[in-house]
Amino acid sequence: MKKSLLALALVSMSSAAIADEGMWMPQQLPEIASKLKAAGLELDPNDLTKLTEFPMGAVVSLGGCSASFVSPKGLVVTNHHCVYNSIAYNSTPENDLLANGFLAASMEDEVAAAPGSRIYVTKAVENVTTQVVDAETSQLTGKARVDAIEENYKTIVAECEQDPGHRCSVSSFYGGLEYYLIKQLEIKDVRLVHAPAEGVGKFGGDTDNWMWPRHTGDYSFYRAYVSPEGESAAFAEENVPYQPEHHLTIASDALNEGDFVMALGYPGRTNRHRLPSEVENTFEWSYPNTVQRFQENLAIIAEQTADNKDAELKYASRVAGLNNYLKNRQGMLDSFANSDLLERKQAEHAALTKWVNASADNGAAYADDLKAIEKLLAERHAESREGYYRSLATPRLMGLAAVLYKLSQERSKPDAEREAGYQERDFPRYEAYVAGFERSFDASVEMALDFYNLKNYLQVPQAQRDEDFDAALGLKAKMSDAELRGLIASWYAQTNLTELTVRNQLLAATPSEFASQDDVFVKAAVAIYPEQQAQQDEAEELSGKIQAAYANYMRAKIAFMREQGEAVYPDANSTLRVTYGTVTGRDHGTYDGTAWTAFTTLRGIQEKATGEGEFNAPAAQLEAIKNQDYGDYAVASLNSVPVNYLATLDITGGNSGSAVLNGKAELVGLAFDGTLDSIISDWDFNIDNTRSIQVDSRFMLWQMEHVDGADNLLKELGIH
Amino acid sequence: MKKSLLALALVSMSSAAIADEGMWMPQQLPEIASKLKAAGLELDPNDLTKLTEFPMGAVVSLGGCSASFVSPKGLVVTNHHCVYNSIAYNSTPENDLLANGFLAASMEDEVAAAPGSRIYVTKAVENVTTQVVDAETSQLTGKARVDAIEENYKTIVAECEQDPGHRCSVSSFYGGLEYYLIKQLEIKDVRLVHAPAEGVGKFGGDTDNWMWPRHTGDYSFYRAYVSPEGESAAFAEENVPYQPEHHLTIASDALNEGDFVMALGYPGRTNRHRLPSEVENTFEWSYPNTVQRFQENLAIIAEQTADNKDAELKYASRVAGLNNYLKNRQGMLDSFANSDLLERKQAEHAALTKWVNASADNGAAYADDLKAIEKLLAERHAESREGYYRSLATPRLMGLAAVLYKLSQERSKPDAEREAGYQERDFPRYEAYVAGFERSFDASVEMALDFYNLKNYLQVPQAQRDEDFDAALGLKAKMSDAELRGLIASWYAQTNLTELTVRNQLLAATPSEFASQDDVFVKAAVAIYPEQQAQQDEAEELSGKIQAAYANYMRAKIAFMREQGEAVYPDANSTLRVTYGTVTGRDHGTYDGTAWTAFTTLRGIQEKATGEGEFNAPAAQLEAIKNQDYGDYAVASLNSVPVNYLATLDITGGNSGSAVLNGKAELVGLAFDGTLDSIISDWDFNIDNTRSIQVDSRFMLWQMEHVDGADNLLKELGIH
Repeated sequence: MKKSLLALALVSMSSAAIADEGMWMPQQLPEIASKLKAAGLELDPNDLTKLTEFPMGAVVSLGGCSASFVSPKGLVVTNHHCVYNSIAYNSTPENDLLANGFLAASMEDEVAAAPGSRIYVTKAVENVTTQVVDAETSQLTGKARVDAIEENYKTIVAECEQDPGHRCSVSSFYGGLEYYLIKQLEIKDVRLVHAPAEGVGKFGGDTDNWMWPRHTGDYSFYRAYVSPEGESAAFAEENVPYQPEHHLTIASDALNEGDFVMALGYPGRTNRHRLPSEVENTFEWSYPNTVQRFQENLAIIAEQTADNKDAELKYASRVAGLNNYLKNRQGMLDSFANSDLLERKQAEHAALTKWVNASADNGAAYADDLKAIEKLLAERHAESREGYYRSLATPRLMGLAAVLYKLSQERSKPDAEREAGYQERDFPRYEAYVAGFERSFDASVEMALDFYNLKNYLQVPQAQRDEDFDAALGLKAKMSDAELRGLIASWYAQTNLTELTVRNQLLAATPSEFASQDDVFVKAAVAIYPEQQAQQDEAEELSGKIQAAYANYMRAKIAFMREQGEAVYPDANSTLRVTYGTVTGRDHGTYDGTAWTAFTTLRGIQEKATGEGEFNAPAAQLEAIKNQDYGDYAVASLNSVPVNYLATLDITGGNSGSAVLNGKAELVGLAFDGTLDSIISDWDFNIDNTRSIQVDSRFMLWQMEHVDGADNLLKELGIH
Repeated sequence: MKKSLLALALVSMSSAAIADEGMWMPQQLPEIASKLKAAGLELDPNDLTKLTEFPMGAVVSLGGCSASFVSPKGLVVTNHHCVYNSIAYNSTPENDLLANGFLAASMEDEVAAAPGSRIYVTKAVENVTTQVVDAETSQLTGKARVDAIEENYKTIVAECEQDPGHRCSVSSFYGGLEYYLIKQLEIKDVRLVHAPAEGVGKFGGDTDNWMWPRHTGDYSFYRAYVSPEGESAAFAEENVPYQPEHHLTIASDALNEGDFVMALGYPGRTNRHRLPSEVENTFEWSYPNTVQRFQENLAIIAEQTADNKDAELKYASRVAGLNNYLKNRQGMLDSFANSDLLERKQAEHAALTKWVNASADNGAAYADDLKAIEKLLAERHAESREGYYRSLATPRLMGLAAVLYKLSQERSKPDAEREAGYQERDFPRYEAYVAGFERSFDASVEMALDFYNLKNYLQVPQAQRDEDFDAALGLKAKMSDAELRGLIASWYAQTNLTELTVRNQLLAATPSEFASQDDVFVKAAVAIYPEQQAQQDEAEELSGKIQAAYANYMRAKIAFMREQGEAVYPDANSTLRVTYGTVTGRDHGTYDGTAWTAFTTLRGIQEKATGEGEFNAPAAQLEAIKNQDYGDYAVASLNSVPVNYLATLDITGGNSGSAVLNGKAELVGLAFDGTLDSIISDWDFNIDNTRSIQVDSRFMLWQMEHVDGADNLLKELGIH
């Protein structure tokens, strides 16, 4: 048995770098050059390593989304859902841009994107590992190590940001083994140029989210503006379009099933290098528990809002969020149940351990940390399990009070010394939170949720409960349901945090003013604060220990895989990556007896269009489809215009809007989603199931030319 | 334009005999021998022409369904839906065989099939064209011709049926161009041997009907019994299993996508050789009108039964029937709308006409009839359109009275001289009709339907209305809605046909007793009878003219196609046919962006099972699936057991239960359905869309072995 598992492990580990899997740092591409060429890349892989050359120089981040320059005048293409807030920001009841779409007839008509919108152009990536974990830091452990690393971060970033108009950050790679400084030009004057109607850009809505077949025209255009001197500048009338050194051009070659494609973008976070115990904790404990709790929360909210339209509306957004989360997590859990992920992870780890122990050198270098990391992770998991019900049991009004009290505490320090997230620049966010609180708050719903959460918490053994929390709220072991309900009711009868004026007073209150408050939730927040801070310190102590051991575990893993001739890519961390794959459907579809074709077509829009809600395709679009007004964009084999297509690209959240290029580095579409059973690829890439979903550039052009009349942009894109 | 249509016609006509299309008479197979061999038939095609040899000797008809012998002891396999009545007939509330399935532990436990169940073994097929249309008949036209042909039929059949235990019939081929005498052994003692539970045999129910993906275990077993002397005999204890000379064996070779398959069975009716005017009349007039009328009928029934549970139940079966019909016809209409069928038909006919007129000989042989058939069909279509609303406007109680009056008229003649359907042997059917009438009758629903139908009828110009009908019912032009409603109400207030005793009296009444009745509907039925009979004679007059011209049109068409080297198969007419094709999915599925795989698997049963209604898979089956208890029937590439599969077999109603054989003539499944957009193949075979649905013999064996424990049958089938 052990032998066969080991054989399996070797197979699995050497397949870790099969074609299609991998979110490669650009500088790694020469390591996999032969695979890239074999897959169909016509460019020299070395060309992709140069961040300021074509094509990487055209690729940008919006912070959470990816995008790219597509004209010499700073025109940027990305997903509709990445510019959604900017469309909403410019919409009015009289001029509903979300519903109708937006097209600036000329540059003068382009409008400011939502406040805070940014375009980041990566200018340099530098390995700063020896500066982050310098000789002195490497001797430290626990919280001291965490603090030292944070201090080094700040120093490196501050120095880099001496260059005006740039934002710098240090990112951790391979679980803290390596650190890179990323320097980006920060473009602050971002303007909305064009977005199709929501019935195109968000066609299918939540129903089709993560689904195939898909027919979403998920594209829109921004333009980057800079000062007349060419510097990064806040929005100003006199600003001029930014002139990128490089931009992508739209493919003139047809894209077909089986073709090579690559996506350039900023994937957010993956967990491919996690240890078996982390996989187990996540999939066998954390996700199932949270799924169950959220399902129960949904049932409680449904019950409480059944005859209360006002409350139903207040919780609509939360209900949608919970459902969205459940769809995601349940998708992952289903995939996990049908996979051997944990067994593979365990076998891989056993093989790694065996390799470490097989040589004296490796043993000396890694054996202690391999043991230590298991123990430390077990400690972290045990703590999170112990604190699980407590972490869920805080009433929302007490949570509000705790946040405002912590803000008050931090604001009593100089701004620069405050904890991140509690600085002056964060204050507007708290103001908005306090002001909007009651738009999503109904006391009867919250009391029902509190009862459910606290009842679960009170079933935790006394020794694992939080004494300060219990005392502050008057919780007692073995309370009857009636007693607990009575206690909860007494809080809501007494508190006045539901009043905006009271919350606004707290927003400005000093710690001592908090301490003198009589509100039950404020008193509780003040009472548990010292213990909360202590817990935070403890967590940092553990994190510091984990950082060192985890980094060395990764060092061992990389050495082991390299010995087998495999290149190793780091987990995604919102930095620029390249992934390549193939345009292809799937031999198994959503249901047994079905398959997925690589492309969807305009026919599917007709099939799905209902004239309302999530499937409200614009009349002009449906008319053009009905008239088979395909122009230059018809594909004979499809007898229509392609809309979306599947590919084996290895992407995740953050890749939204990523330029998808063919082997000649011509733009053939934008990645915008993955299918439901691809979600687990954040942990485990499975070539049989994983498919990214792209909007075809031919659809974008068709919609712009034959429906939306975006002739000015087509000209700028070099189409006509 | 004309030129391109013509080019199209030539392409289309020469593709009429492409692989997959064709319901070939066995004796025609040598004509397409090279195609059969190329497609994968390993047998000599000549072997398939011998009706009393293997494998054709194993193929039988159940009258409306197809079946085949699968053991030397008369075991017959067919579809579950073909033996459904026999399962129901043997079910009791205490022993619900439909729900639980049935398995005779030994031959003694086999039970009689439903009364009237038959197994027909085709023994001989003889061309009797020159006897049916003999020298004298060929000189006749109109009704005289129809009567003469019917007379000749009767003579030929009577002579053939001198052989006891055989049933003979004369069937028309190629629209009356050829006639064949079919001689069949009629096995009257049919017993039910095994049927899986309805949750297997009818899994998916009406929801999945005509749909893919499909997971229906649509198979069951009968056994044929004969007298101890080996003669056809009615059910008797002492009867013994019939010993067929040949039986099919279940394939030992795996069946894979791309494999050759052929279906041997009795397809009911197709319309591939119809003229363009018939296609036009059907798809542009008849079907759309009937669809609209049925939709409106459904709405009326829904409205009338909305608050009347009793009435709702009475009309449930009719509502299901109407919905089923609508699904079928709407499917056809959708397919027609997306096809160029009519244009192709017109171009084909133009090419045929051109060919006829291009030579003096052909012109002399066919030109007159080619003109005549168009004129005669136009006449028939005009008549059916004129009489359309009248044909729908007869109140159901008046229809009942008319049928019973006609029966009374016919019964006043000697039995042999009566019109078919009104002979003594038909009497039990009328008794059942009369007795069961009120189980599906509610006056308020009928009055609402009458109002709708009669209002439509009264809008027909006076000249096209039926004077006798109007006078009998008191209908007047330009009646107001209120007047019409009042008139209808007066009928229902007066009639007593709703009483069973009254209806039973009429069942035994003489024509003169009918004439003395005072009931409004009986009086109306008697009043319109002479005109109805006259119309029937007129229709026969036209039929006689059409018969001669249509036969000559088909002669021309066959000559034209043969000149192009194409074999021509006749339209289906419930006689034995062979069709061949390939196991294959489809590159376009139910929705854009999806495809169909060739096979479904046990996984799909799990996916669909709900534990109730149409998806009530048995617990033991689900348990076996869950345990991956696949035994010998797992297919590695499917990682499961195949359940149903798609093929390009050209089948239609009547093919249900057809043996599907591989290239070695081994049984690989049973045809039981086609997909929704295959329904139009009754008019137009389209290889891109048309797929037959088969139950895989491996599923049958798996279910019998791993769920139902049918070891005795598996042994008889030679499996274990």
